[in-house]
Amino acid sequence: MSCSSDPEMRKDPVVDRWVLIAPERAKRPGDLPVALFPELPNGCPFCEGREDQTPSEVFAIRPGSANANGPGWRVRVVPNMYPAVSAPSPAASGEDGDRRPAQGGGVGEVEFVSLPAVGIHEVIVECPQHESSLTVMPVEHIATILATWRDRMLQIRENREAVYVQVFKNHGPAAGASLEHAHSQLIGLPRIPSVIQAELDAVERHKGQFGGCLFCDLIEREQSAGERLIRSTDRFTAFTAFAGRFPYETWIFPRQHNGRFEETSRAQIQGLAELLRWFLGRLDQCADRPSYNLLLHTAPFIGATADYFHWHFEFLPRLTGVAGFEWGTGCFVNPIVPEKAAEILRQVK
Amino acid sequence: MSCSSDPEMRKDPVVDRWVLIAPERAKRPGDLPVALFPELPNGCPFCEGREDQTPSEVFAIRPGSANANGPGWRVRVVPNMYPAVSAPSPAASGEDGDRRPAQGGGVGEVEFVSLPAVGIHEVIVECPQHESSLTVMPVEHIATILATWRDRMLQIRENREAVYVQVFKNHGPAAGASLEHAHSQLIGLPRIPSVIQAELDAVERHKGQFGGCLFCDLIEREQSAGERLIRSTDRFTAFTAFAGRFPYETWIFPRQHNGRFEETSRAQIQGLAELLRWFLGRLDQCADRPSYNLLLHTAPFIGATADYFHWHFEFLPRLTGVAGFEWGTGCFVNPIVPEKAAEILRQVK
Repeated sequence: MSCSSDPEMRKDPVVDRWVLIAPERAKRPGDLPVALFPELPNGCPFCEGREDQTPSEVFAIRPGSANANGPGWRVRVVPNMYPAVSAPSPAASGEDGDRRPAQGGGVGEVEFVSLPAVGIHEVIVECPQHESSLTVMPVEHIATILATWRDRMLQIRENREAVYVQVFKNHGPAAGASLEHAHSQLIGLPRIPSVIQAELDAVERHKGQFGGCLFCDLIEREQSAGERLIRSTDRFTAFTAFAGRFPYETWIFPRQHNGRFEETSRAQIQGLAELLRWFLGRLDQCADRPSYNLLLHTAPFIGATADYFHWHFEFLPRLTGVAGFEWGTGCFVNPIVPEKAAEILRQVK
Repeated sequence: MSCSSDPEMRKDPVVDRWVLIAPERAKRPGDLPVALFPELPNGCPFCEGREDQTPSEVFAIRPGSANANGPGWRVRVVPNMYPAVSAPSPAASGEDGDRRPAQGGGVGEVEFVSLPAVGIHEVIVECPQHESSLTVMPVEHIATILATWRDRMLQIRENREAVYVQVFKNHGPAAGASLEHAHSQLIGLPRIPSVIQAELDAVERHKGQFGGCLFCDLIEREQSAGERLIRSTDRFTAFTAFAGRFPYETWIFPRQHNGRFEETSRAQIQGLAELLRWFLGRLDQCADRPSYNLLLHTAPFIGATADYFHWHFEFLPRLTGVAGFEWGTGCFVNPIVPEKAAEILRQVK
């Protein structure tokens, strides 16, 4: 637990809050919130033709017969240069799942829990050209990106390299993106994140009490109320969150009950890509091309939770800062009423 | 729950996470994370001589016989121009405490809970000159600021205007400060914040299991281990948080068990001011004058919780961004090992 440089997961001794201690991340440029992207003296490392500036790819969509780590790809997945977790060693892979041994524990009657932060941290480079936004890409290409997320998750699940995979996209400097070139990330973790665990607990309680899926019931409620609804298609529904933390915070759900994103069909992915592109176009007009975080919530790879979970995306436009009040209380301040935000998103051309 | 402009508190229908819907805040300039403070065409509204640019003061330290809302003050408290909560109406004050009636509830088997966001939102202008940092102020003046926090809390408690007062300081643009002139804020809330409730639950469990105060035991453990200890005085102790969310995250505790900050003695406040100034000087050298959030955690005004709580400050330097991974998982990424951070803070001149 002292000053080693291996990444580590630690639980707060007071509350159920975890942190990744990741010294490799200190080497990452531009970690501070900045208003502009940094200049890149050697050009953008994510552009086609500069494949040697990233670690070797772990996956790529290459329509022709082009060689790995050369040009000719549409979407490319590489290990993160500044990983927040360390790669699993082949010997250590095994059956322990969520129950890796924790160091410390019970010292002086206060729990100091930590475990090795072993997992996967990858960058999905979303296109070969230097584009910054999904909104300039065809729906078909967005579907290819989403399918790449799914396929990497399936592979990590099969390899038992993580119990949960967090897929996320940071768009724009205010959302924590350090490079402009369109990209997303995934981190495979050795335990279920507390945000997901809290949702699992909620859906389990709901199932016990009412018999149905909490998220299915939420979708039905939002569909019939309509005041927060932005758009509903055959397969998907998008509405502003009742207690949205950020202006225009939007949740996107498949309408049919489905626990695992990685088991999504190609047809579903096509429908999701259409809705996502439509939504992003609207948002850019309402909020002047905001920075945003896009987060996947899905069932963990372990346990029987997929039966009662319901995967979805949370879309957080970073239009307001997070400051002392939010950190102190856990309560966010949102200056735009969610029903009003939905109305604006519905009405904009 | 529709598009009214009264502030409202809402609970997420899935997890125990609250949000303040506060349309007044939309009028606030510079709410976006920015790298620089905005230019002020009429000069800084917090400087002595510009008292007419703020709402009328609710409290001030005026050593002479100077009139309210004129010059001659040392510390001045005014209502926030862009409040996140609305002022309590005199008729509505009463006995209901944490149990204000919630709208909604149980619609379609999913809870949509909201309650009026009634409370107090004040700015503490920390000095009459245009200073930006506590580090340039004498210890005696910092003690006056801390005593102002205490005195306002006592008054709000006596007036039953809130059940919890969150005192916080946003220093620097990356920490959400919109004005450079040194200031802090307090928000009096109609319910106990979830962050504080989680700590109350933890200390109550600990008390039941071991008989003592969790925070007293934590302090003892950190004092004896020493690896995260930064400084310990007769009355206070400062150490880096075992699972710190941000680089150099530091917690400051009174060594003697004490639940309520607002019952702190003048001698304690003097000791706290000394430690705070010492710590801030060190931090400025280690981390190049970082932006930070300073948060008070204290026992709520209601319930018997003060017996087993232990007030403290959390100090969050905003040296890393908060992005998709953190929002998705609830797990933070800290690139500096807390034991190493403590070592650096101890060793710097």
